[in-house]
Amino acid sequence: MKLNGKDFKTICFDESSESILIIDQIKLPHELVLKKINTLEGIYNSIKNMEVRGAPLIGVAGAYGLVFGIKNDASLNGISRALDYLNSSRPTAVNLEWSLNRIFQRIKNIDENKRYTIALSEAKKIEDEDIQMCSSIGDHGLNLIKDMVDLKYKDKSINTFNILTHCNAGWLATVDWGTALSPIYKAHRAGVQLHVWVDETRPRNQGSNLTSFELKGEGVPHTVIVDNAGGYLMQNGQVDLVLVGSDRVTSSGDVCNKIGTYLKALAAFDSNIPFYAALPSSTIDWNISDGLNEIPIETRSQDEIKYINGLTSSGQIETIRLTYEECNCLNPAFDVTPAKYVTGLITERGICNATKASLKQLFSLQNQ
Amino acid sequence: MKLNGKDFKTICFDESSESILIIDQIKLPHELVLKKINTLEGIYNSIKNMEVRGAPLIGVAGAYGLVFGIKNDASLNGISRALDYLNSSRPTAVNLEWSLNRIFQRIKNIDENKRYTIALSEAKKIEDEDIQMCSSIGDHGLNLIKDMVDLKYKDKSINTFNILTHCNAGWLATVDWGTALSPIYKAHRAGVQLHVWVDETRPRNQGSNLTSFELKGEGVPHTVIVDNAGGYLMQNGQVDLVLVGSDRVTSSGDVCNKIGTYLKALAAFDSNIPFYAALPSSTIDWNISDGLNEIPIETRSQDEIKYINGLTSSGQIETIRLTYEECNCLNPAFDVTPAKYVTGLITERGICNATKASLKQLFSLQNQ
Repeated sequence: MKLNGKDFKTICFDESSESILIIDQIKLPHELVLKKINTLEGIYNSIKNMEVRGAPLIGVAGAYGLVFGIKNDASLNGISRALDYLNSSRPTAVNLEWSLNRIFQRIKNIDENKRYTIALSEAKKIEDEDIQMCSSIGDHGLNLIKDMVDLKYKDKSINTFNILTHCNAGWLATVDWGTALSPIYKAHRAGVQLHVWVDETRPRNQGSNLTSFELKGEGVPHTVIVDNAGGYLMQNGQVDLVLVGSDRVTSSGDVCNKIGTYLKALAAFDSNIPFYAALPSSTIDWNISDGLNEIPIETRSQDEIKYINGLTSSGQIETIRLTYEECNCLNPAFDVTPAKYVTGLITERGICNATKASLKQLFSLQNQ
Repeated sequence: MKLNGKDFKTICFDESSESILIIDQIKLPHELVLKKINTLEGIYNSIKNMEVRGAPLIGVAGAYGLVFGIKNDASLNGISRALDYLNSSRPTAVNLEWSLNRIFQRIKNIDENKRYTIALSEAKKIEDEDIQMCSSIGDHGLNLIKDMVDLKYKDKSINTFNILTHCNAGWLATVDWGTALSPIYKAHRAGVQLHVWVDETRPRNQGSNLTSFELKGEGVPHTVIVDNAGGYLMQNGQVDLVLVGSDRVTSSGDVCNKIGTYLKALAAFDSNIPFYAALPSSTIDWNISDGLNEIPIETRSQDEIKYINGLTSSGQIETIRLTYEECNCLNPAFDVTPAKYVTGLITERGICNATKASLKQLFSLQNQ
């Protein structure tokens, strides 16, 4: 998608240097910096420190991390160590585990000296498929938005369809297109008059740093709000749809996503506003059904709350402290929205209810 | 209450200079700066810019503002202009209107040359009464907390009672004691083992700037969280009580308070956790009953979202920009929690349900 008028993807493999190139997302929106990585440790740190983030993109970056690990040590022992190491970088999103396992299954029974080449080709496949899945999510979501717009504005000549989103589930969270933002980009390109409320998304401000920056790049009208404001806007008829991504969806439709998502789902429910999560099927964890009790919630450093980065008036990125010095903070990074508050799930296969039966039907029917 | 081991009030009249002294709350927690004000305009700006804030404190500061206005022009025309001017400083809290009207009623029929002295004495009375009211709120709230603690922990030898609060409804929002924090201070002094989850409270960060600083001063254990995290904590049994202040309560018990309060009330309701608002009776607007439609919600500058202050590593307070430069933001400052989500109201008269009948009973019975 576009940034400053140029087409970008978040990650790509550079054949000549056998490295991947990423956008260092920590520096956005203030600086657009590309970074070259070609080691297992480099990928681990890049995921851990959130230079790359977003469940689908973590999956793809992790896949390349494993490729670099195999390049260095293609033994099963070495691969097993690399898998554990990468899986420990961030515990909540299931996509990472999914992509690592996919590569492992692909190479475990083949010759050691062929593993690197095969793993690399599989990582590229995962990358390409992510683009396709996100594009399909966008197509299905576009139809949903069009239906809602038709229903809502059938008697009015001009109006704007307002979508609220939390965190960043745009192309910066995937390889291209995004999950929650993919339907928005497709709708915008299809001429639907829409406006996006962008939750700032403390503590890492992925909304004000990334989502608003993405939407600007594609020319989609948007307004940043603090995370506290969404409920008020919903009570006052300013939101037509809440659309978020997800880091893990259970087989019963519980949606784990960035901390604070659950509060928006409650508010949407209270104001009778549809609440959808958009995700590739690699986000679905078919092994668990109780999101509140079975999904490990990552606790991140309290410094993410105590300190914040921004641009000084002289144009430098500076870190300042917000609290008193020895202040104690707690920083859980995700929460779980119980399926009963989720209107539906938008996947690359289509849209389903957030129920075991509906998920099963969507995926088994189309698997046949 | 205590800051750095010394007793403070937020506001006091200095007889020798005929000025008021305030704590400049914009600079907290990084610098403790006292400021002298002795003009109507000085008070207006101090309220507008939130050097003094919190509904009860705005009421007291506004009263002194009117006193300074009368000192300069004691005619009814002059007073009327001063009233309009001060009332326009912040529209949502009803305490300001209440205290200004109280002084006006007291002086409108007396000689012009006596108005300053009488108004000053009335302002001091409002200040003293605020302290008493907040102390009484604390006493009633203490009983509530004790009952809850007894109920919750009757079978356990040691445990901690966890209270979540939003924004700052402590002594910095009043003259002394506070509203929501008054029961907490009294419970802490009475030996109740408690811990407070402090919502950061974007965009002005009154939680991380003021509430945590207050609680530290009084030695109350506390942890700052982002506004997004409260729902997660409630889902996971980490919150026993949600306790907030209010800027305006309708006659039917709708609670207007800092933006984001409504989201916490929804989460408390979803997890069956009691949600109380603590307020002096001057916060009750008996003239309205439909909070969602009748309370004017202040929209503040979008710069409060785009920029943030904090301390640099070299110890300077610096402002940095969080969003891309021309990013559009919307900054509504309050929201309304419908009475159905409010377990009860803690006032200086006692505790009542958030219903017309219960409010009426509490206040009319005790007026007789």
